[in-house]
Amino acid sequence: MSGERPRPAEATERDMDRKILELFRSRSGGVVSGEALSTLLGVSRTAVWKHIKNLKNLGYRIESVPSRGYRLVASPDILIPAEVSAGISVRRIGTHVVCFRETVSTNTVASHLAAEGAAEGTVVLADAQTGGKGRLGRRWESPPGVNVYCSIILRPPISPLHSPQLTLLSAVATAEAIERTSGLVPAIKWPNDILVNGFKVAGMLNELSAETERVEYLVLGIGVNINMERDQFPGDLRYPASSLALEAGRTVERIPFVRALLESLDRLYDEYLLKGFSPVRDAWLARSAVMGRRVKVDGGAGILAGTVEGIDEIGALLVRTAGGSLERVLAGDVSLEG
Amino acid sequence: MSGERPRPAEATERDMDRKILELFRSRSGGVVSGEALSTLLGVSRTAVWKHIKNLKNLGYRIESVPSRGYRLVASPDILIPAEVSAGISVRRIGTHVVCFRETVSTNTVASHLAAEGAAEGTVVLADAQTGGKGRLGRRWESPPGVNVYCSIILRPPISPLHSPQLTLLSAVATAEAIERTSGLVPAIKWPNDILVNGFKVAGMLNELSAETERVEYLVLGIGVNINMERDQFPGDLRYPASSLALEAGRTVERIPFVRALLESLDRLYDEYLLKGFSPVRDAWLARSAVMGRRVKVDGGAGILAGTVEGIDEIGALLVRTAGGSLERVLAGDVSLEG
Repeated sequence: MSGERPRPAEATERDMDRKILELFRSRSGGVVSGEALSTLLGVSRTAVWKHIKNLKNLGYRIESVPSRGYRLVASPDILIPAEVSAGISVRRIGTHVVCFRETVSTNTVASHLAAEGAAEGTVVLADAQTGGKGRLGRRWESPPGVNVYCSIILRPPISPLHSPQLTLLSAVATAEAIERTSGLVPAIKWPNDILVNGFKVAGMLNELSAETERVEYLVLGIGVNINMERDQFPGDLRYPASSLALEAGRTVERIPFVRALLESLDRLYDEYLLKGFSPVRDAWLARSAVMGRRVKVDGGAGILAGTVEGIDEIGALLVRTAGGSLERVLAGDVSLEG
Repeated sequence: MSGERPRPAEATERDMDRKILELFRSRSGGVVSGEALSTLLGVSRTAVWKHIKNLKNLGYRIESVPSRGYRLVASPDILIPAEVSAGISVRRIGTHVVCFRETVSTNTVASHLAAEGAAEGTVVLADAQTGGKGRLGRRWESPPGVNVYCSIILRPPISPLHSPQLTLLSAVATAEAIERTSGLVPAIKWPNDILVNGFKVAGMLNELSAETERVEYLVLGIGVNINMERDQFPGDLRYPASSLALEAGRTVERIPFVRALLESLDRLYDEYLLKGFSPVRDAWLARSAVMGRRVKVDGGAGILAGTVEGIDEIGALLVRTAGGSLERVLAGDVSLEG
């Protein structure tokens, strides 16, 4: 297979950075002596100094405290595994995190990792994407430093026909994370958009590898416009788009957002494996922008109009037409009426 | 990506073999002089002689006719692209054929080729499989020289939810090829078994790579027991199995079978792209072993009993229960009653 591959170079170096950050965070007052760091990490004082310098370069504010050591004053909002994983409480999703400063597409990387056998719950993040993918071959704007581009590998024991259930699950988790970290009230637009105040702030693009009756792996791709500025949106977007910061009127930190997202995903997925689709469906319907509303659906072959009555077990939208028949919509663009 | 990969080495050599066979077949009486072969192929008389020797090693019976040249007396029943493609009439499926004497699994090879961008219609064949795959991780018995193990790459412009339609299409094509080459009357057992006289003679294992709303590629895997002897079946088979030869009481040639299979697939797929699922559904229902019959379905979570009324657009079996409700069955093992 050709194409982009992750380069987990300097894994032990990164591991050392993570351990140093953990030590800072475990101390009240946050001061750790160079000697303690050297002893606890089993490296020389010079090596400790090099790692401190490296962390400062990454944006950490670390002060020297005369005759006492070092103190961590502030952490930057950069996507590195040490920060994403710090203190996160998950069973499966986020136990292994890979971060890129830039990659073609986190979904592409995650698909390659999954094909090579990466464990369920592996998360791929990037600060920027050079070939971010949207629905149906469209582009997903992926400038550096402001948004979240995240892909998660799942291996659910289900038929591929049920895989849209996980798309709905990822939409619910994203909506929860937006609510918890920004205070905004998101709505889910079938099948995979997240709206705030009617503007699209997040989208899902999931990839599937399966045999006829069982999924080999799913990659949940989640793109969220966090701190994107108005002039960073292209003029030709299909839907009116916005970012959490624009809607909330304040900067939203990315690391807490990613942690909230992974925790929601993990909890919902755990519940899904235990209890099936029902809880996800209920949560989805509760946050749905279309439930009970009159809609028009452009399914490519024609336009269907009616009132949304729910979704079925394969994620199809159930639409009651004026004639009284209940239609199952498997794919299409939905617009609200009235 | 690790694992098995095709080695299309000696492509030009094989191409030369194919051209020589075509020349033999284009001549009435089948005699071609060494000089004519040399001139038409643009190679030396020594090279012609080497290729004739090579074809003899492959099992072709080629006679020297004194002062006239060579004559092709008989072709062996071996799976090589030159034989599979000879005189085949297809639009898409079978325009590119790759054959292996032995491989792990033709589905695995085809999936790798598809991921690397192989064209729609590419066909992978093997004389033997060392890791032949059946449904749900089961093994597919794949001894050398007697059966057909075939995988086809498709790139239909459909939603992954509709991909079971292609499983049904491959079952119809396999049933047609069995009928045309053996005279037997096959029946299709939902979702993907082919029965003759109640014995399973063929199975389908399809693999899918997709985004939420569109298929990237499908691999149709088709295994057919052609000339397998009774003592070649393992004792612990899940279903009673047989081969075309055992049921027909005579040897069935593999090359004509593969050609018939690819031609049926090609014709049905062409019709599918033009007219949608309806013709496939009608053909499937006409050959179905379960249509109108009382069945029990073991879907893992429980047993459902009722009468089969058809299949819907995502390939679900429609079963009318004694209580009168119409149930949609997405996965499970079906057994006939009464």
